[in-house]
Amino acid sequence: MTFERTIKEYQEKIDRDIAALTQEISSRSLRNPISHIVRAGGKRIRPLITMLACEAAGGKARDAIHAAVAVELLHTFTLVHDDIMDNAALRRGLQTVHTKWDANVAILAGDTIAALALESLARTRSPRSRQIEEYFAEAFVEVCDGQAMDKDLEAGTTADRKKYFTMIEKKTAAMISTSAAIGGAIGSTDIRCVNALSRFGKLLGIAFQIRDDALDIVADKKKFGKEMGSDIREGKKTYLLVTAAAAARKPEHKALIKKYLFQKGLQGADIKKMAALYIHTGTTAHAEQEIHELTAKALEELDILPKSDAQKHLRFIAAMLTERTF
Amino acid sequence: MTFERTIKEYQEKIDRDIAALTQEISSRSLRNPISHIVRAGGKRIRPLITMLACEAAGGKARDAIHAAVAVELLHTFTLVHDDIMDNAALRRGLQTVHTKWDANVAILAGDTIAALALESLARTRSPRSRQIEEYFAEAFVEVCDGQAMDKDLEAGTTADRKKYFTMIEKKTAAMISTSAAIGGAIGSTDIRCVNALSRFGKLLGIAFQIRDDALDIVADKKKFGKEMGSDIREGKKTYLLVTAAAAARKPEHKALIKKYLFQKGLQGADIKKMAALYIHTGTTAHAEQEIHELTAKALEELDILPKSDAQKHLRFIAAMLTERTF
Repeated sequence: MTFERTIKEYQEKIDRDIAALTQEISSRSLRNPISHIVRAGGKRIRPLITMLACEAAGGKARDAIHAAVAVELLHTFTLVHDDIMDNAALRRGLQTVHTKWDANVAILAGDTIAALALESLARTRSPRSRQIEEYFAEAFVEVCDGQAMDKDLEAGTTADRKKYFTMIEKKTAAMISTSAAIGGAIGSTDIRCVNALSRFGKLLGIAFQIRDDALDIVADKKKFGKEMGSDIREGKKTYLLVTAAAAARKPEHKALIKKYLFQKGLQGADIKKMAALYIHTGTTAHAEQEIHELTAKALEELDILPKSDAQKHLRFIAAMLTERTF
Repeated sequence: MTFERTIKEYQEKIDRDIAALTQEISSRSLRNPISHIVRAGGKRIRPLITMLACEAAGGKARDAIHAAVAVELLHTFTLVHDDIMDNAALRRGLQTVHTKWDANVAILAGDTIAALALESLARTRSPRSRQIEEYFAEAFVEVCDGQAMDKDLEAGTTADRKKYFTMIEKKTAAMISTSAAIGGAIGSTDIRCVNALSRFGKLLGIAFQIRDDALDIVADKKKFGKEMGSDIREGKKTYLLVTAAAAARKPEHKALIKKYLFQKGLQGADIKKMAALYIHTGTTAHAEQEIHELTAKALEELDILPKSDAQKHLRFIAAMLTERTF
């Protein structure tokens, strides 16, 4: 089957399963906000990776559906809670749960989504269910730890490349790595396959986050859903910032970065100056190079798998995530 | 071994394991609040039930340690988040996490404790690990659903006995039932044992919650950690309220209950009047009767298990929880 048809079929299956799961919640005050966020959609990248990884490892994609739903819901849970912490008003083009309802509803809705994730995971029939549970639990811990690091970095006044990479490995890459590893473990008994898929997911996750950071100064608001330079305005410790901080030599560049760090972000004309700094210090070019190398390494990991449509589809997903312009 | 020595030994093992787990969190900003709440202690009732249930079912208590830690941490996670939603200032005699730090820290600390719970659960070596995961996931969903029902009931103006029982089954009894069932599933392959332990936990959990509600009008602040009549002040839909509402016949009683419901709680002299109403309508005696019957039924469930010290210890725990005066 073509990439588009396969993806559409899997996405629909994932959506149906998620909708059915949310019906298990008996209190309406909880079911409404949960439906609101889980139906808001998103690209379902993580569960697609789980299903395709299972297939690419030699299994049947449908055997990974419950685990796929589990990783998507775990991701959704983190979004609901992160949006409270980040004071975010919009998510996937819709009002965030804590904005449409309130913070208490969003806390409990998030918790329940995590619980449903676990319920779905427990439905996976696999001789390696304990290993799968371990991968899942580890990603759960990592994503929380990563969010804490992100908040700590945001509050701090340093731009540390090493800490940045540790943070995104935990906050972004661990979940994508786990999505692939769990699919692999359902589809194959060969631990080398599972580990290769895990590394594929991790490298892809890092590349994906750098792409996300790089898009801040080029993205089209309509497509990307946020203003150009909003990371700069909010003083986020992005790939661009930590890389520019390490490379900056000119006094005016150093001064601007210092201002960014100590004021926790820039305003007005300084935003454009910072974007220009990223370009002139070669930071944006460096990001492209790094994304390219990470993606290439990620794809190499797939070479251990037998040639298949699913393997090809995973390559498409990798390209989609790392080459996207919005 | 005597009850006291066994309990002390198991509690120490649980505390050590929990302390070790929290060290796995790398961000200090998260480790401190987590240590604060997990070290605050509590009686560790749920994990003790898990270990004793495992032993009573024929297994070794130490085989249930990871699962025991998991149920305790799942319980702790709900406390941290419930305290945010309930605006509670104190927990286990210490400042709540959102009071000592802030709500964002408490959200993330709670999430991480849930993640650590799952990590601990995944360490359980058992041929029935998938079943154990299912029990755990179900309790996780139930406890969230129960908290939502509790909040809905709090916001409403009716006193519905049926809804009250559904709510406490989800919010309190499901976790205790699961604690016992998981221990049983680790210790025995006999599903009848596991189901009996599950019912034991459920009945015990309901009795425990009714005891907790009944103590509101007799409890000593120093021992119980909260003011006499604080449920009345906060307008909680307790066992006493829903039972009195169903039994009240005198106009002045009906009027007071209506006031309680529509004002969401009572103030000043009305608090003592309400406590008197509970006594005069026979509500408190009814609570004693119901606790007694539920506990007896819970204990009957243990008869299917072979006679053992662990079985005896479970009976002690049941007595402790339902006969306590603080």
